[in-house]
Amino acid sequence: MVNVGVLGATGMVGQRFIQLLENHPDFDVTALAASSRSAGKRYEDATTWYLAEEMPESVKDIVVTETSPEAMSNDVDIVFSSLPTDFAAKVEKEFAKDYVVASNASAHRMKKNIPLVIPEVNPEYLDMIEAQQKENNWDGFIVTNPNCSTIALTLSLKPIVDNFNIESIRVSTMQAVSGAGYNGVPSMAIVDNLVPYIGNEEEKMESETLHLLGDYDGSEVKPAQFKLSASCHRVPVIDGHTEAVFIDFDDDFDIEDVKSKMASFKGLPQKLNLFSAPENPVIVKEEEDRPQPRMDRNAGNGMSVTVGRVRKDQVFDNSLKYVLVGHNTIRGAAGASVLNAELINDKIL
Amino acid sequence: MVNVGVLGATGMVGQRFIQLLENHPDFDVTALAASSRSAGKRYEDATTWYLAEEMPESVKDIVVTETSPEAMSNDVDIVFSSLPTDFAAKVEKEFAKDYVVASNASAHRMKKNIPLVIPEVNPEYLDMIEAQQKENNWDGFIVTNPNCSTIALTLSLKPIVDNFNIESIRVSTMQAVSGAGYNGVPSMAIVDNLVPYIGNEEEKMESETLHLLGDYDGSEVKPAQFKLSASCHRVPVIDGHTEAVFIDFDDDFDIEDVKSKMASFKGLPQKLNLFSAPENPVIVKEEEDRPQPRMDRNAGNGMSVTVGRVRKDQVFDNSLKYVLVGHNTIRGAAGASVLNAELINDKIL
Amino acid sequence: MVNVGVLGATGMVGQRFIQLLENHPDFDVTALAASSRSAGKRYEDATTWYLAEEMPESVKDIVVTETSPEAMSNDVDIVFSSLPTDFAAKVEKEFAKDYVVASNASAHRMKKNIPLVIPEVNPEYLDMIEAQQKENNWDGFIVTNPNCSTIALTLSLKPIVDNFNIESIRVSTMQAVSGAGYNGVPSMAIVDNLVPYIGNEEEKMESETLHLLGDYDGSEVKPAQFKLSASCHRVPVIDGHTEAVFIDFDDDFDIEDVKSKMASFKGLPQKLNLFSAPENPVIVKEEEDRPQPRMDRNAGNGMSVTVGRVRKDQVFDNSLKYVLVGHNTIRGAAGASVLNAELINDKIL
Amino acid sequence: MVNVGVLGATGMVGQRFIQLLENHPDFDVTALAASSRSAGKRYEDATTWYLAEEMPESVKDIVVTETSPEAMSNDVDIVFSSLPTDFAAKVEKEFAKDYVVASNASAHRMKKNIPLVIPEVNPEYLDMIEAQQKENNWDGFIVTNPNCSTIALTLSLKPIVDNFNIESIRVSTMQAVSGAGYNGVPSMAIVDNLVPYIGNEEEKMESETLHLLGDYDGSEVKPAQFKLSASCHRVPVIDGHTEAVFIDFDDDFDIEDVKSKMASFKGLPQKLNLFSAPENPVIVKEEEDRPQPRMDRNAGNGMSVTVGRVRKDQVFDNSLKYVLVGHNTIRGAAGASVLNAELINDKIL
Repeated sequence: MVNVGVLGATGMVGQRFIQLLENHPDFDVTALAASSRSAGKRYEDATTWYLAEEMPESVKDIVVTETSPEAMSNDVDIVFSSLPTDFAAKVEKEFAKDYVVASNASAHRMKKNIPLVIPEVNPEYLDMIEAQQKENNWDGFIVTNPNCSTIALTLSLKPIVDNFNIESIRVSTMQAVSGAGYNGVPSMAIVDNLVPYIGNEEEKMESETLHLLGDYDGSEVKPAQFKLSASCHRVPVIDGHTEAVFIDFDDDFDIEDVKSKMASFKGLPQKLNLFSAPENPVIVKEEEDRPQPRMDRNAGNGMSVTVGRVRKDQVFDNSLKYVLVGHNTIRGAAGASVLNAELINDKIL
Repeated sequence: MVNVGVLGATGMVGQRFIQLLENHPDFDVTALAASSRSAGKRYEDATTWYLAEEMPESVKDIVVTETSPEAMSNDVDIVFSSLPTDFAAKVEKEFAKDYVVASNASAHRMKKNIPLVIPEVNPEYLDMIEAQQKENNWDGFIVTNPNCSTIALTLSLKPIVDNFNIESIRVSTMQAVSGAGYNGVPSMAIVDNLVPYIGNEEEKMESETLHLLGDYDGSEVKPAQFKLSASCHRVPVIDGHTEAVFIDFDDDFDIEDVKSKMASFKGLPQKLNLFSAPENPVIVKEEEDRPQPRMDRNAGNGMSVTVGRVRKDQVFDNSLKYVLVGHNTIRGAAGASVLNAELINDKIL
Repeated sequence: MVNVGVLGATGMVGQRFIQLLENHPDFDVTALAASSRSAGKRYEDATTWYLAEEMPESVKDIVVTETSPEAMSNDVDIVFSSLPTDFAAKVEKEFAKDYVVASNASAHRMKKNIPLVIPEVNPEYLDMIEAQQKENNWDGFIVTNPNCSTIALTLSLKPIVDNFNIESIRVSTMQAVSGAGYNGVPSMAIVDNLVPYIGNEEEKMESETLHLLGDYDGSEVKPAQFKLSASCHRVPVIDGHTEAVFIDFDDDFDIEDVKSKMASFKGLPQKLNLFSAPENPVIVKEEEDRPQPRMDRNAGNGMSVTVGRVRKDQVFDNSLKYVLVGHNTIRGAAGASVLNAELINDKIL
Repeated sequence: MVNVGVLGATGMVGQRFIQLLENHPDFDVTALAASSRSAGKRYEDATTWYLAEEMPESVKDIVVTETSPEAMSNDVDIVFSSLPTDFAAKVEKEFAKDYVVASNASAHRMKKNIPLVIPEVNPEYLDMIEAQQKENNWDGFIVTNPNCSTIALTLSLKPIVDNFNIESIRVSTMQAVSGAGYNGVPSMAIVDNLVPYIGNEEEKMESETLHLLGDYDGSEVKPAQFKLSASCHRVPVIDGHTEAVFIDFDDDFDIEDVKSKMASFKGLPQKLNLFSAPENPVIVKEEEDRPQPRMDRNAGNGMSVTVGRVRKDQVFDNSLKYVLVGHNTIRGAAGASVLNAELINDKIL
């Protein structure tokens, strides 16, 4: 068993880490770090628990520490980070001197030699780690996962870019409120309403997706060459981001072929049989009114992306339209970091 | 005063007709038609009233009739129709022998010589009426308004197509539940959820918008030459459709120029000072998180379309992105027919 | 293994039956009956599946039959019924000639010699079965479970009535939309709204609760002697009924004693270790803002009732106030019938 | 015209004050105070406007001041306060030296010689003002209105206590999220959920209601002698509190008589024809599924309370049950203070 810690343990994504790591066959949560307000308290006393699943017994008595390498137990090997961006920018580097940092924060996602990884999509980016460690003289390293909306989109795109030539993409999102954290979206803002703006979300989707689907030549990432434009919106849904995708292909294509490539897609985590890897990273629904967030967000224990309405555009030639749903705090956040750590544990540690 | 009737008077759009026509300076509701289940009853007794606004006193005692020209009072000049498509296809023609039919139904929208009109956009299509009457040997005629999502989109596009060259459009909608009628969307389908499918909605948007923005040469309509593809979704909002719009222009453009053209746009209803005409058909918001359906649907008494996030696409050259909100049962349905009737009353009757 | 059938198999409670019976150690679903519209089709083809949990593979190929004993397979022993009241009134009796009918319908709940049972509360009412069979000359019999709101309330009351003297109860409910069936509550009725009326619900709570907590003397039920008045309301929650309870005791009481009796309560299903029996029928929360339906409805796999805010009334002497949450389609419907069947299977069959 | 100021002008109730005072025939908003963060800015620049109604033009250019009498313009006569309790406790007294303070804050509601008033219920409590001024040596004074849930309940009770003898009351509330302020209830807490706890709400209802319905003998208030117990809950509704009321009478009563007394109830504001006074303080609905917050909250411009399901309890003798809806930020907050000020302006100033 590998001892792991969670940074930002009392927050919503921190709680998801703890919930997903309960009964994990390889990882054992032994350290929890949070703000100084929580430090020194038992985790159960320090935390307002937000998830419908019960708080695991195994973490209740862990005493929360400050978020610094000095306060972290030596016998921990991996720390999962759901720290706020600004704080992550500084503190994750300090942890990387001695720990593997599997981070859901955006601070280091696009930095040179820091792998931004979805295990089914670009596991080869982990090769950056050696350069990262050498450059910084670190014993540990940082690995990051993308933004929640990006992960779901990119997973659905991977079997397409592997088999077809994409020219351009437009995507319009309908995102769940949990993506903004527990206090992020006031009910006054969202009951009988939606908010057509999420700060920095469009920029992240537009850059991270191309980065993930690019080529790493051993020295740097050459982003994918198609173009992607996003419009991001918040809707009154608790969990599960929905995205309407418009894709222009270079050439004509067979729609059944597209669906078949999506449905049969397997990545490295499936081959390695990693614990959190869903059997099918992409599930294709044929019902005309699916996917729906409440119905499909938990597919594959929240680790699959469900697509539906996969259809040829009736107006634009060589164009595809579909809708996807992915669980934003599982596959789109905590589960993404955990799967990254499982891959690292299997291949590197 | 012109006496008017409402066909489908007990339904949700029928109720909106009645509410909007209360205290109308030119129209007096004197006849209400509905299914045989309601016929013979006082309107108040026949109707489960769905609107937060009170049922107008003036209609409570009107005895509901069957939906046929024979049952309709002779002193009525205009009938407003919110009939179901199949029934409208047949019965609106019968009414057109003697009555002006201002219809919100989709049955005749794309038919030759039947004007599909938004008064600010294509009032000249009313010129079809003469041919329609002659061809059918009717004393009355049918005029139609577009689908709710189409109206809001087309109003926002009109100042753009008048001043710039559009190459193509993608639009992704987030539509209110009232668009499906009172019993259309079960709460089980939409609480903590969304439904990424609305039957025939994408097809209507894709065809009607081009038809409205086309040219009528006195004989037939040549649709606009750009392409438009839609993806339509239902969200947990009572009233107010939201649409995310991606537009490719032929050439570069100035974003302030686009906003200015939208904000200053006036159409014929504004020039004629029609009763239901909003001062500004298109309202441009500068706040980064607007428009929102609960906040903006009632702008211009529900007859304005509010746009926001009007911005240059950061990825695609010569491309524009914005978000719009329009009230789907006022500007998108009953109010659209009423404004058509006001224009007809001013110009033709 | 006992072969079981489900009557009303395509409806919402019917689907819950199928979901709860998946992987059941004693019951094997081998027959599914529904309306003639579905009869003759594979279950998967006949059904719009409403649950977020996937349809079990084992039922997909079962051919749906008409709802009559003649159409039911002979090797079935127990049929679960979620039929509409009127139809249940007639057809459950026909099934009872040969089958054990475990019914969630209200048709026979208050009938003489037909046990209305919550296994933790009044298992002794099953003694009525002998008289029922004799009187009707049936080989099978009918056993019923109460209305969803009643079950949750009565479970929470049982440890109280066993240990204290209750004088009177007022209860105000906030009920989930799933209680009305998939199409029962239109979204237009409940988004940003609530409906302060549920047909017959108050009457059922007021009579069934006293019946369940009464005494069966071997011949008839003498209802409990306290009084209970209910006010029932529908709120925008998918699953999980919440109830605010006001109880007047005859005498003073110790609040910690009440909580302790609730938390430690065990019934016959717990002693018999029945498969669907929750470890704790009543869970007591100390957090000031619990129970909440989204957080607590799935406690004990949806078979526990969670109470909170258990407090002495600050105004009335000898009075108690608390709030409860119970899952209305699991413990309040399908799970209730299944637990009844498990008890019958253990004690009678 | 009387010049008025608003304290807490940028908050949600502060915005309601401004919206309700737009076009007021007697009051002219000339001063706006808020926190030091806003002071010195134009109101439009200092404020995130939360209401669907547009910000009145007349206030946009008013420069916000600090919340102190020194910063307040001398030509103001009345200040409306929606300050947080702790701050109100101190600063309202300072304002009272020179200004009439019409407060929605709870700080001084139950204090000796400070009138807690609903104009239709206990206008005679304004007689306390003389003693208040004398005791404190103030030129101004403080008048308060009750908590939002209390106002709606008490208005509905007034015609009952005037005509019948009440023994005891239980009330269970379903309260809108706006009652907690814009950021008060996170969407994560309330979508597909409810929260069965509102801090101090039950205590306020239990004490304020009896105080309002008591007797003022010229020296102190003797509270009403019946007992009232509350259970308070938050539901996913934007505006409009709903309350289920159980009342025990001393004697038998005629249900039509109760309804008639409620429906015909008029108070002093109606007699004086005050600007914000609704024609009917209490509206009685006969439809079995009303009142509903989305449908009934705006009755009487948000100043009426709508009751429905007024019925005899079928279980308890001499008992009444009904459900009420009142707009919590209009009649329950800003509108209450404005009506108090109108009464004071008519009778005292």
